[in-house]
Amino acid sequence: MYFSSDNAGPALPQVMQRVQEANTGFALPYGADPIMKEVRERIRDIFEAPDAAVFLVATGTAANALALASYCRPWQAVFCTRIAHIQEDECNAPEFYSGGAKLCLVETSDKMTAQGLRDRIEAEGVRGVHGPQRGPVSITQVTERGSVYTLDELRELTAVAKSFELPVHLDGARFANALVALGCSAAEMTWKSGVDVVSFGGTKNGCLGVEAVVFFDPSKAWEFELRRKRGAHLFSKHRYLSAQMAGYLQDGAWLEAASRANANADYLVAGLRRVGAEFLHEPQANMVFTRFPARLHQRLHDAGAHYNMWDDALEGADPEAMLAARLVCDWSITHEQIDLFLSHFD
Amino acid sequence: MYFSSDNAGPALPQVMQRVQEANTGFALPYGADPIMKEVRERIRDIFEAPDAAVFLVATGTAANALALASYCRPWQAVFCTRIAHIQEDECNAPEFYSGGAKLCLVETSDKMTAQGLRDRIEAEGVRGVHGPQRGPVSITQVTERGSVYTLDELRELTAVAKSFELPVHLDGARFANALVALGCSAAEMTWKSGVDVVSFGGTKNGCLGVEAVVFFDPSKAWEFELRRKRGAHLFSKHRYLSAQMAGYLQDGAWLEAASRANANADYLVAGLRRVGAEFLHEPQANMVFTRFPARLHQRLHDAGAHYNMWDDALEGADPEAMLAARLVCDWSITHEQIDLFLSHFD
Amino acid sequence: MYFSSDNAGPALPQVMQRVQEANTGFALPYGADPIMKEVRERIRDIFEAPDAAVFLVATGTAANALALASYCRPWQAVFCTRIAHIQEDECNAPEFYSGGAKLCLVETSDKMTAQGLRDRIEAEGVRGVHGPQRGPVSITQVTERGSVYTLDELRELTAVAKSFELPVHLDGARFANALVALGCSAAEMTWKSGVDVVSFGGTKNGCLGVEAVVFFDPSKAWEFELRRKRGAHLFSKHRYLSAQMAGYLQDGAWLEAASRANANADYLVAGLRRVGAEFLHEPQANMVFTRFPARLHQRLHDAGAHYNMWDDALEGADPEAMLAARLVCDWSITHEQIDLFLSHFD
Amino acid sequence: MYFSSDNAGPALPQVMQRVQEANTGFALPYGADPIMKEVRERIRDIFEAPDAAVFLVATGTAANALALASYCRPWQAVFCTRIAHIQEDECNAPEFYSGGAKLCLVETSDKMTAQGLRDRIEAEGVRGVHGPQRGPVSITQVTERGSVYTLDELRELTAVAKSFELPVHLDGARFANALVALGCSAAEMTWKSGVDVVSFGGTKNGCLGVEAVVFFDPSKAWEFELRRKRGAHLFSKHRYLSAQMAGYLQDGAWLEAASRANANADYLVAGLRRVGAEFLHEPQANMVFTRFPARLHQRLHDAGAHYNMWDDALEGADPEAMLAARLVCDWSITHEQIDLFLSHFD
Repeated sequence: MYFSSDNAGPALPQVMQRVQEANTGFALPYGADPIMKEVRERIRDIFEAPDAAVFLVATGTAANALALASYCRPWQAVFCTRIAHIQEDECNAPEFYSGGAKLCLVETSDKMTAQGLRDRIEAEGVRGVHGPQRGPVSITQVTERGSVYTLDELRELTAVAKSFELPVHLDGARFANALVALGCSAAEMTWKSGVDVVSFGGTKNGCLGVEAVVFFDPSKAWEFELRRKRGAHLFSKHRYLSAQMAGYLQDGAWLEAASRANANADYLVAGLRRVGAEFLHEPQANMVFTRFPARLHQRLHDAGAHYNMWDDALEGADPEAMLAARLVCDWSITHEQIDLFLSHFD
Repeated sequence: MYFSSDNAGPALPQVMQRVQEANTGFALPYGADPIMKEVRERIRDIFEAPDAAVFLVATGTAANALALASYCRPWQAVFCTRIAHIQEDECNAPEFYSGGAKLCLVETSDKMTAQGLRDRIEAEGVRGVHGPQRGPVSITQVTERGSVYTLDELRELTAVAKSFELPVHLDGARFANALVALGCSAAEMTWKSGVDVVSFGGTKNGCLGVEAVVFFDPSKAWEFELRRKRGAHLFSKHRYLSAQMAGYLQDGAWLEAASRANANADYLVAGLRRVGAEFLHEPQANMVFTRFPARLHQRLHDAGAHYNMWDDALEGADPEAMLAARLVCDWSITHEQIDLFLSHFD
Repeated sequence: MYFSSDNAGPALPQVMQRVQEANTGFALPYGADPIMKEVRERIRDIFEAPDAAVFLVATGTAANALALASYCRPWQAVFCTRIAHIQEDECNAPEFYSGGAKLCLVETSDKMTAQGLRDRIEAEGVRGVHGPQRGPVSITQVTERGSVYTLDELRELTAVAKSFELPVHLDGARFANALVALGCSAAEMTWKSGVDVVSFGGTKNGCLGVEAVVFFDPSKAWEFELRRKRGAHLFSKHRYLSAQMAGYLQDGAWLEAASRANANADYLVAGLRRVGAEFLHEPQANMVFTRFPARLHQRLHDAGAHYNMWDDALEGADPEAMLAARLVCDWSITHEQIDLFLSHFD
Repeated sequence: MYFSSDNAGPALPQVMQRVQEANTGFALPYGADPIMKEVRERIRDIFEAPDAAVFLVATGTAANALALASYCRPWQAVFCTRIAHIQEDECNAPEFYSGGAKLCLVETSDKMTAQGLRDRIEAEGVRGVHGPQRGPVSITQVTERGSVYTLDELRELTAVAKSFELPVHLDGARFANALVALGCSAAEMTWKSGVDVVSFGGTKNGCLGVEAVVFFDPSKAWEFELRRKRGAHLFSKHRYLSAQMAGYLQDGAWLEAASRANANADYLVAGLRRVGAEFLHEPQANMVFTRFPARLHQRLHDAGAHYNMWDDALEGADPEAMLAARLVCDWSITHEQIDLFLSHFD
């Protein structure tokens, strides 16, 4: 009963297979391995972007911080939501990599709205040399609360950014989960909707540790390479990153894994609805924010269920108090585990 | 015939085995996995340092830059040789991670000498608030030219550092190669010789991409954790780093691999001596800096041998000109490949 | 009719006098001048803090950024209000000097409340290594909206900070204006109320360009000196900074100037009340945030009055629309100028 | 007998006069004061550069660090001599302002040579993404050892830089002293000789604390403004910087002061030659590096002479040992003081 995060599950067999296969003989280091060539072409195909610059790093925070820094000067502001991963969960990595840029927060409990973004940008650009200058907009898809921006919503946001001539970054730690939820193409969810650079996640959806950074404008490529090396994120035995990504993208493994994760969440949600749990946000991908009585949390806790309480503390709570939790389903969790989890609600 | 670097070879079977085994079920992320517990204990045992703080990162540059930054304020100087990896091959990562510290270079063509270090430190500390302040000393063992400091040499260097109350970092990207060359214990080569923090390399000696940072003074632990996270070097699926290191350290695999790499270099050196090649430095571990006529380089080049020319360019050189090359042997290169390489000298 | 800012007026005669007198013969540079000795003692007396470390810099932003950086690690959060000068008007200087710390904003339209501060701190410290760590609290006295914290309010805020073991910085760009408004001692408004370090402003209240940074804990002194030098804020001909501060503090010149500035604002406020202007905040020192019809703004504008519109734009506004303005009085503005300003309301 | 530095003398009467005159009424802050307009035009005239972007800061380190940062990315190398002020005397300010660039040192005991510079640049650009990238060249005129590059020497250096497409910064802390020594125009010593940006010193030659940064390519202007503000070097009461510079440039005051300083040094050198002192470098401007017996140092010391010993320590020295000293003459030192100094050699 492991619902803590999709970063706690195992890697896909296809990923392991390619890593295993890669482990033979010598290979050119630092991204010059032949598998990287394959990966680059594959990603360009997927994104219908034959000129895209494609790089691999091993963590999502590295992907985000390096991508943003490439579009941000130290005296600028990055626009994101208050709940953005880059704001809440990266220990100031964006500030570090950008050389001290400021994150300017759009207030929201989940998605960024076009109006909220516009207001925030307008409020920031009025102090001349004194205030921070307007910089990139960063959008998380799937959001940190499990919601998925529609293509229209994405386009409205990027239109706001473009009206201020600001670049747009997409934090796609759960890119595949969003894509299968929307049923659109990778191109539609990115550059066709006005996105300039994507953190294309692999780790949470079945890799060991690999994320791609995809620039649709390849003029940023060399700067990114220098930033990646200076940040100590260039792997010498790069083939093992390449191999993970190659396995992930092979024969649609990535989309299948995301579909399974989303379906697992649907199955969990259906069960939670039956037992009367409430939902903080309408689940749209593989994350479920739900609320149910403390006594049930206690029961699950005693039974060894793993998940994060959300803002609420279980200890000392009234047994009937409705407490919130975040439940994340990865591709590997089974219906048996979910059923077992739900059985404690009876 | 692959002598470019020990970062181009495959991973050890023991390493792959443990990675494979780790890929089952759920595991706590971010270093809380049970394999990391095993690794931590194993490293403490190896170093005879029951209180040591042990962390894993995926690249050598990350290990060095994060370890140094933990002992360095932005207004300080880091003392290292002109040929140090941190100076030449990390694209200013130490400056980045330290917030702008300065690398002060001890002039040498290979090893740092105690006198050279003392002179450099003394020259740096005389300008009060105006100049950089004295900071940590960083020593590379095996050196970037393939030499190995004796324990006496190490102790002389650390004694100089200690006489100025400066901490000592050991860049042990080829830690195991040095250890088997010296035939001493890990404790003797580190804290018993005055070293405060070690980058304990795994990648070059048979891992996919993992290095340990070992602090003998555990009071630096929390700061390091924050620096690692802020630097985007904390892995969510940390178990795959742990598993590599566990396999590496299992049943002496790491020492056996290093012994093989060093023996491979010995075998190569013996062959090179027979054919009259010259040596820039006396090879002591698994790196060989050698000089032979351009026409032989050309022949090897045409035959598909991989290695780095050293300062010299082959193109346009006089056929009889003696040109330098760096030849690195990893654990996996075979005597057949070495023999094939040498056959071109006939 | 110059109400734009108190940074646009001239320097006090006492300040100019001391600068002139200082301009003779040779003097030790970099703060070793004898006038600095006098200034240090004078400030220690004023603050009843015989051990305080006292430094001079030339700009308020330097004072704030250097003081905060001395109490802040790059992975920490600085707590301040959304309207803080360090947030809005320093072009990311705090992020720069701290090496990438994050400013965490307490929502308010003016003063920080103890509850607001506590909520913000509590919200920030719950993500372990993933989120920013809690760092210093920065309070502006006089606030950026012209309000003055009472001693009780200050103590409540610092008590919150202390309950989390966080240091407290006071941005005292208008320190003297606050002091005369409260009628208390400098010690009461700082260390006796729990403040650890003060930016003690001189520039806005009659100097050419000088601010003192006062650390009540002198153990920060050497680090500050290095930060100041590295930030290029150590003056070689330091005597001219010292002389300004010496003149400023001489015979109560600083308090007299602040009393005049505050009295000028009182006089302006009384006049504005008579003509029916509204106030956004109750003026307590020398800044007035007021609202009156656009047609009056236009008339003042045409007459050459200088002041900042506040959020509202005059151009294209309905003549009867109530638009906001910030009016700042410095020590040098005359009742004649204020009367002239008010005459346009008739 | 004050020969410690030209940063220890008083300001020129013309400078004080303009500061005094500026101290009346209100003036627009942050560089929008009318005196700055005058200064900008004056400097453009002096440099025969009608499009130059001109900014004022208060310290030489700020001028250097901000100017260099505007031409340098964090992963680059700045080329300068081992004895450069930016290397030795700015406490890592260039590293700080550039976000962690590396200073690559041309070995020399005084001037940089074209060959030395070329060798250093060539040595730095050979490691692809691994090493630092080539960045700006910084030349100090007058050098830190009191020498003056001829125009031919300057042009040879900038030609090397240009052959690698690198920008050139001139640290002109003693710009005027060099100019009068060469008897050329400011344009000839800068952009006509290939210089892109100048730190145009005022402080050491008779100002209180002001330096101009002059960009011959005005496209850097806005970035510089943001860097200056973020670095806390933008003065609110900017008129007092402007006024200093206006007085300095008025009626050739700056050139006259430099001529006097150089002549004072000539007078001192002539006297030292008479008494048999040795010279480490041939004095060409207002700095004298000389060597004479310890017993004479002691005598001067006892008589209250101020100057810096150079590498040598007086304490415990053999009375006849030849010890080095740096003697700097500013515009204000009198022949009487020099004669008094020399009288101790009898």
